[in-house]
Amino acid sequence: MTGAERTRLLAVARGDAEPDLVVSGARVFSAFTREWLDGDVAVADGRIAGIGSYDGGERIDGAGRHLVPGLIDAHVHVESSKLLPAEFARVVVARGTTAVVCDPHEIANVLGAPGARWLLDASEGLPLRVFAMAPSCVPASALESAQGALGPAEMEQILRHPRAIGVAEVMDFPSVIAGDPDVLAKVGLHPHVDGHAPGVTGAALDAYAAAGIRSDHESTTWEEALQKRRRGLWVLLREASNARNLEDLLELVRRHGAEYCAFCTDDREPDMLVREGHIDAMCRQAVAAGIAAEDALVMATLHPARCHGLAELGAIAPGFHADMALLDDVESFRASVVIAGGAVAARDGRTLPFAPPPVPDWVRDTMNAAPLQDDAFDLGAAGERVRVIEIVPGQLITVARHETPAQRDGRLVADPVRDLAELAVIERHHATGRVGVGLVRGFGLRSGAFASTVAHDAHNIVVVGADHASMRACAQRLVELGGGIAVADGGVVRDTLALPVAGLLSEQPAEQVVERLDELVALLAEQGVRIDAPFMTLSFLALSVIPDLKLTDRGLVDVTAARVVELVL
Amino acid sequence: MTGAERTRLLAVARGDAEPDLVVSGARVFSAFTREWLDGDVAVADGRIAGIGSYDGGERIDGAGRHLVPGLIDAHVHVESSKLLPAEFARVVVARGTTAVVCDPHEIANVLGAPGARWLLDASEGLPLRVFAMAPSCVPASALESAQGALGPAEMEQILRHPRAIGVAEVMDFPSVIAGDPDVLAKVGLHPHVDGHAPGVTGAALDAYAAAGIRSDHESTTWEEALQKRRRGLWVLLREASNARNLEDLLELVRRHGAEYCAFCTDDREPDMLVREGHIDAMCRQAVAAGIAAEDALVMATLHPARCHGLAELGAIAPGFHADMALLDDVESFRASVVIAGGAVAARDGRTLPFAPPPVPDWVRDTMNAAPLQDDAFDLGAAGERVRVIEIVPGQLITVARHETPAQRDGRLVADPVRDLAELAVIERHHATGRVGVGLVRGFGLRSGAFASTVAHDAHNIVVVGADHASMRACAQRLVELGGGIAVADGGVVRDTLALPVAGLLSEQPAEQVVERLDELVALLAEQGVRIDAPFMTLSFLALSVIPDLKLTDRGLVDVTAARVVELVL
Repeated sequence: MTGAERTRLLAVARGDAEPDLVVSGARVFSAFTREWLDGDVAVADGRIAGIGSYDGGERIDGAGRHLVPGLIDAHVHVESSKLLPAEFARVVVARGTTAVVCDPHEIANVLGAPGARWLLDASEGLPLRVFAMAPSCVPASALESAQGALGPAEMEQILRHPRAIGVAEVMDFPSVIAGDPDVLAKVGLHPHVDGHAPGVTGAALDAYAAAGIRSDHESTTWEEALQKRRRGLWVLLREASNARNLEDLLELVRRHGAEYCAFCTDDREPDMLVREGHIDAMCRQAVAAGIAAEDALVMATLHPARCHGLAELGAIAPGFHADMALLDDVESFRASVVIAGGAVAARDGRTLPFAPPPVPDWVRDTMNAAPLQDDAFDLGAAGERVRVIEIVPGQLITVARHETPAQRDGRLVADPVRDLAELAVIERHHATGRVGVGLVRGFGLRSGAFASTVAHDAHNIVVVGADHASMRACAQRLVELGGGIAVADGGVVRDTLALPVAGLLSEQPAEQVVERLDELVALLAEQGVRIDAPFMTLSFLALSVIPDLKLTDRGLVDVTAARVVELVL
Repeated sequence: MTGAERTRLLAVARGDAEPDLVVSGARVFSAFTREWLDGDVAVADGRIAGIGSYDGGERIDGAGRHLVPGLIDAHVHVESSKLLPAEFARVVVARGTTAVVCDPHEIANVLGAPGARWLLDASEGLPLRVFAMAPSCVPASALESAQGALGPAEMEQILRHPRAIGVAEVMDFPSVIAGDPDVLAKVGLHPHVDGHAPGVTGAALDAYAAAGIRSDHESTTWEEALQKRRRGLWVLLREASNARNLEDLLELVRRHGAEYCAFCTDDREPDMLVREGHIDAMCRQAVAAGIAAEDALVMATLHPARCHGLAELGAIAPGFHADMALLDDVESFRASVVIAGGAVAARDGRTLPFAPPPVPDWVRDTMNAAPLQDDAFDLGAAGERVRVIEIVPGQLITVARHETPAQRDGRLVADPVRDLAELAVIERHHATGRVGVGLVRGFGLRSGAFASTVAHDAHNIVVVGADHASMRACAQRLVELGGGIAVADGGVVRDTLALPVAGLLSEQPAEQVVERLDELVALLAEQGVRIDAPFMTLSFLALSVIPDLKLTDRGLVDVTAARVVELVL
């Protein structure tokens, strides 16, 4: 803030000048003591002036309600919402969220460092503070083909942005633990480094922490989280669409208190955001599980701020940013008023209108796939036993199976009766014409195909199908759309969701995106697909760093061995 | 650390390389969970590698003992010890302290920004990490005469030192609260700012906090400290020679937990350091008062580190600096081994020898007083009622009294029978010849005089006496010594303690300084002075920012009115 603003803020605190805004009569949460205070909260020039009694200013009557700091998400990939940052903000601000720390690694896989910086630029002027960590693992591995790699130079380009605050989750934990100099060079770019160490414990975890990494959001048991906390890693309790860990991790809070614990959502699909909510939903769930509301609140406000060194966020205290939520109660955590940067940003669950930043053309034009050859999806000669990817419902891991699939005209083909579908990943950043092919079990697809340009992490085109014509129709339509999701049958596209921004984000309102996804899921059900979240499941089949067997444009990947393997055994 | 050191640290953590040092068999304090863990602690290149089981390395048997992070003092004026930084380190490292955050404002009053930087340079290579905050209030007020003023430019010069980490206690709280632009400019120099707001509460405290100040060590009641903590100020619980606040403040910890609380000593005379100890004594006292040892320990280790953003200090965790103390138990907190930067620094209460940095000549040559005029101490014509400073035993405040003093030859003079002594402050930085004079009650001085160049905060010569000849003898001897403390009677100096470095610090070992101070106090007792800590009491009579009535070289200061007043009413 300017010197003049600071001077006025102090005058308001003293009672010598009128505040801009006063929230009166609420019980005010003191994050530093976990108490509820009585008093009016005065705001001037976007900051808290104090808690007391004030004359003048716009008034918000908080009587009978609870005033808490704005909620903060300690780790989120905004792109998983499939929404533009402004639309993401509209959805979560209504829920009381006023800041997020994001890792823009999805868009960085498609658009490199400029994409990550654009995501920050596209967050300018929102009622949501969007901070970013510089992605450290683009591409996720050498076995998948992002638009380009982010080396230290590209990360530094991102870190020069004023809202870039550190190095994002270092997912390549085996290289960290092994002391690989390239990954340690990235870790050394900034003193603040987020971690990602699923299942890492003991001496390996010591090595990971000794590298200087200071948080983790991948624990699935409270005992694993406790090991991390003992080593000085902030425990980010996660509740994502595809990784619902909160319930299990709350035991850590029950046993050892809420210190060094904070909430995060990591990846939430738009339907989860719209239907369940955001950090408010985590508070609700924690309190329902018996956690004190005050403990839930510090994990949702002050702790994520402290974890990330955001010294002026996360509390209602003099000089702090005036980001606050007026809650009806601390069971529902329903925000009747949300204040962001000292101004009312949402009322009664609706974010007030604001002007979203314009979307530049260059983030829309990202599909660069070579024309598909006639034999692009050909699996090879029949008669051999082959590797098959088997989906594990509700999880990101797969199981590698061996099968003897069906054949037609002497070539291996899908076999819907045995739930064996053809899978392909089509490189789409540099028109290389590279296509990886394989077989997958578990979708239940009886006919047709579906495809997505949301295909972690490189976001090439991933398509699964019972026939090549439908697969081809999906892929071609996605190229025409500039990215998205498509469902086809009988060689004809039935419906699509366009994700024109980087092939990842819609430009539509959240509710329309959810509605369209529901419709696409319903179409897929007609084609036999009844598993939960089929598009998300498909999108993770291309991620080369989660075991056992995955498919990239370079072919089948044995994740544990970290190499490409042949389809035929 | 270098890349090669980091690589080796990770290898040690994994068990692939031998550690330098292993502390085996101790119960290991986990500061992030307040637990005691079983395991060996491995150290490589000055850092903690992990807690587990290791082959090789130098061994320290910790069986039956408690291994804790090295203790940290959150706020200290090293100069109050009257010891060189290396000697201060020798005393406190033996007690388990491995880091301090100091405010070098005493030496900065005498030697400006170069003095503050020298104090940091003189801390190089010690077994104690010395961090500094840039003094924000030199001189303490416009009514006293330091060697020079520290403006923003001088503070920035200090802040460029690699161990300077923020802006030191902003003592001029009335100006902060009033929004004075000069003091706010200093506050704005760095995001990390320590506070000093004795008795400030309510709206004034809101204003003080809204300025961006984030700690305070001046609370004397737990209720005052609670007000500060609610506003996001770290509560630094103080136990100084002259301000023993710990006992009262521990109630805050009992009621609201140890979060956002840390220990500090502020000002400890050498006798307190040698006889009682340092942060170890605060832990001992806290546990004796019923505080859990684990709560005391986090306030003595991790919390001061977090308060000051020292991310790699304060815990025994992988990647953290290997600063640790092996305690016999958590009642006595006696450190049998102290490890600093990965090497044994003390054993059985004795710091191992190390080479102290040499002391440059320019910090010794600081006395620049004009020759005293014959009438330098003349109080003026007799017969009038005058203002008298009355000492409050054990406190820094004084009371302003009105008296009709004795006279000789028509001039006002001391009156030992009524315990009225003459007081003078002689400017000694720029040979201006300025001498402030007044009368003081409360020392009990029957004859002679005593004087000190430790005279907060400007550190001119302060002298109190029953006769001018003794006062003159003291002052002249201090000029010859280059600063110190002197006692005289009958116009003859009886004994001295030389403080040749800036007139503040001895070059002798702590035990000798304590012995000499004891001897001087004994001499003073012979002259009637029986109050506790007479030299410290004298040194604070010149501090123009603690009420009610003080004396500087510019005359009597009415502190509340912030102006010089006449002796004669």
